[in-house]
Amino acid sequence: MGKKTNAFLQRKFDKELEINAERAKEGIHDLIIVLDHLKGNFNMGKIMRTAEIYSVREVHIIGTKFFDPTIAKGALKRVKIYFYDSFEESINRVKKLGFTPITFDSKTDNYLSSVKLPEKVAFIFGHEEFGPLYDKDLHPDVQMVKIKQYGLTESLNVSVAASIAMYEYTRQYGKDIAQI
Amino acid sequence: MGKKTNAFLQRKFDKELEINAERAKEGIHDLIIVLDHLKGNFNMGKIMRTAEIYSVREVHIIGTKFFDPTIAKGALKRVKIYFYDSFEESINRVKKLGFTPITFDSKTDNYLSSVKLPEKVAFIFGHEEFGPLYDKDLHPDVQMVKIKQYGLTESLNVSVAASIAMYEYTRQYGKDIAQI
Repeated sequence: MGKKTNAFLQRKFDKELEINAERAKEGIHDLIIVLDHLKGNFNMGKIMRTAEIYSVREVHIIGTKFFDPTIAKGALKRVKIYFYDSFEESINRVKKLGFTPITFDSKTDNYLSSVKLPEKVAFIFGHEEFGPLYDKDLHPDVQMVKIKQYGLTESLNVSVAASIAMYEYTRQYGKDIAQI
Repeated sequence: MGKKTNAFLQRKFDKELEINAERAKEGIHDLIIVLDHLKGNFNMGKIMRTAEIYSVREVHIIGTKFFDPTIAKGALKRVKIYFYDSFEESINRVKKLGFTPITFDSKTDNYLSSVKLPEKVAFIFGHEEFGPLYDKDLHPDVQMVKIKQYGLTESLNVSVAASIAMYEYTRQYGKDIAQI
């Protein structure tokens, strides 16, 4: 991606964020999505779009400065977003609100499809290649789940994993639509 | 996308299909994914990748001639694929195999998250804008479900919807990994 394109995307992104600051409200579900140093590619927009569809309370974007808002289809204007430089700022807010932080890690035996989730959850998604970048020794209270997979080689794309996690949360705790 | 690019993608696609013809085997789950006239954009590759991860029995591609295989990350070589020109060819195979065809349609009250799925299912996904293109009067036995959504405007991207559907099927009927 050229410099010019980046500058263009950045302006477009900033413009949507201005509207966000005026309009965005917390979603109806006690679910926070934490995006820990994602690449800033189309995955970000896709996750924002799905976060709007599942009416999550808020999204934390850590370390990613901007991304192409087109793919978010307007969700960038409507989903409550907090931008952070460090994981600590995000996790502090998560805990202060009384939410349980849960990350996705293949090194656990807890499958998303068979655990009873806490009612207030923050799902943490890490960098597409390197996974979550926070220091695990500093945060032993972050729980882990994994999504059962049957393929030979590849793992689920991060935006797909996030969508499945939001689906599962609302399957367990989704508000009756008539209440909205 | 220019003509040259299309020709290049087509060649790459054909090459992967040659390998597919030699190597691809049915997946372990009694789940068929039917893609009814999708656009042939990145959604196709994403769905193929997720279909491999969930080890679906086979994928039917109706009306889409080729797509960029890069996004499928090799899944195009491994997932059993049937190409059809018409919906009838696909549905005939689905029924002959004893699978129940289910499509995604907002005009039903059956939520994916609360129905007990049949053990042998074919999930039908339609064109990104126009939905499934088959004649509903000719196929009254195709059942309908919808994925509960809470957003104001947009609906789930087709590759996200397909991923959630595959997750839900394996949540209900996923094989014990040790059996593979």
